[in-house]
Amino acid sequence: MNSAHAAVEIEGADRPGEVVLVCEHASNAFPAPWGDLGLTPDQREAHIAWDPGALGLARGLAAQLEAPLVAARQSRLIYDLNRPPHHPGAMPVTSEIHDIPGNAALSPDDRSARTEALYEPFHASLRSLIAERLARGRPTALVTVHSFTPIWFGKPREVELGVIHDADPSLAQAVLEEARRVTQLDARLNEPYSGADGVCHTLALQATPMGLPNVMLELRNDLIADPTAQEAMAVTLAPVLQAALSQITANNGEAA
Amino acid sequence: MNSAHAAVEIEGADRPGEVVLVCEHASNAFPAPWGDLGLTPDQREAHIAWDPGALGLARGLAAQLEAPLVAARQSRLIYDLNRPPHHPGAMPVTSEIHDIPGNAALSPDDRSARTEALYEPFHASLRSLIAERLARGRPTALVTVHSFTPIWFGKPREVELGVIHDADPSLAQAVLEEARRVTQLDARLNEPYSGADGVCHTLALQATPMGLPNVMLELRNDLIADPTAQEAMAVTLAPVLQAALSQITANNGEAA
Repeated sequence: MNSAHAAVEIEGADRPGEVVLVCEHASNAFPAPWGDLGLTPDQREAHIAWDPGALGLARGLAAQLEAPLVAARQSRLIYDLNRPPHHPGAMPVTSEIHDIPGNAALSPDDRSARTEALYEPFHASLRSLIAERLARGRPTALVTVHSFTPIWFGKPREVELGVIHDADPSLAQAVLEEARRVTQLDARLNEPYSGADGVCHTLALQATPMGLPNVMLELRNDLIADPTAQEAMAVTLAPVLQAALSQITANNGEAA
Repeated sequence: MNSAHAAVEIEGADRPGEVVLVCEHASNAFPAPWGDLGLTPDQREAHIAWDPGALGLARGLAAQLEAPLVAARQSRLIYDLNRPPHHPGAMPVTSEIHDIPGNAALSPDDRSARTEALYEPFHASLRSLIAERLARGRPTALVTVHSFTPIWFGKPREVELGVIHDADPSLAQAVLEEARRVTQLDARLNEPYSGADGVCHTLALQATPMGLPNVMLELRNDLIADPTAQEAMAVTLAPVLQAALSQITANNGEAA
């Protein structure tokens, strides 16, 4: 690794809750040695660079659920931690309607260096946190927190809460039912995209092989645009997650 | 980690072949700080402690296929690297008809320490090797090499080559067809056990989330009892693997 940049931030590793929260697109930082990839300030603030509001929501959920939070410390345009190293989206050449100049001509060495500096330590830290809990027999569910843009290629999206799953849909289905029961959100399963679109890599890598309940939450980012809205959404969604986990735990004996 | 013991040995990390070989049950070493777990010398030589012959076969395959080999350096009874940390078989209290005294009363701290010292570095090393290849665009398939005992709970087993898969059966099916076509082995799919029995953790953890072709080879250990037999089996099976990979690569465009 030729960078002193730390790829991952872990908050509250020892918190006692059942959920482990992950925010792969938490940051729009463009640290050295990668820098701004030739993007304009507006582009670096836009949804292509990160998931606006997701970190604030994840921190609110972490407080409500007494959950550890594992978050990225750099833009997804440098390395999208929710994609494997050979995926075109890991170091994308374009995102929506924007070219990413600093990704236009990456060599195998460049790709390897970013993978080693960012993807490997992020997922090793998360794996270690999960493995430690499992070795001690602690029930564990994995919840990733994302946001999506209200307008994509010029088209508005009506869905407000997307509830997405990997191979095991049980937690996602329970979250969807509970969200429809106790919130006013337009909540939909596997929208605005699904695991079939390759957006569930963290769940596939970290939860499925361990048999952990898992869900990816996608909030439309206009609903979590400032700290007040993020906190309110956390207060709305934390009991939804807790009720959903209680339900699948009751169905399965225990969550992990 | 409170041990200077290295959990993993990697041979030929830079070899150019398409296959990455793994041998989770390569060793019957009982190093400090864990020691012999109260087992007799006969027990420490038996199939409960390791997969006899698997490392010799894996090394033969590695030479034939120009493949890197990632192998364990301690007995599966200390930590079975093909099981997640919360699986009862990770640090088993019994194996077949044998009690494992040193595993009878493990505390959460004991389980955590073994997980951190053995499971995490083994799988982090394998993950890193795979991620590096994928970042560079190198086609990669994962093949784990095991052996099974001819007699299990007193019953003889007729199968000679078990070909086992995780979610994607394509490579396993191609290996099975080719083995039946060009060898005399009694080859069977998902025998003497299958992924449904939880024996495919390494494939589920390392291959499936990356979309890599994968197969677990299980040889009846009386067929690979000495170095001559191991080498002969490697010479038999290497072209089977190569032909199977060529077939699925032709079907899919490329293997990874």
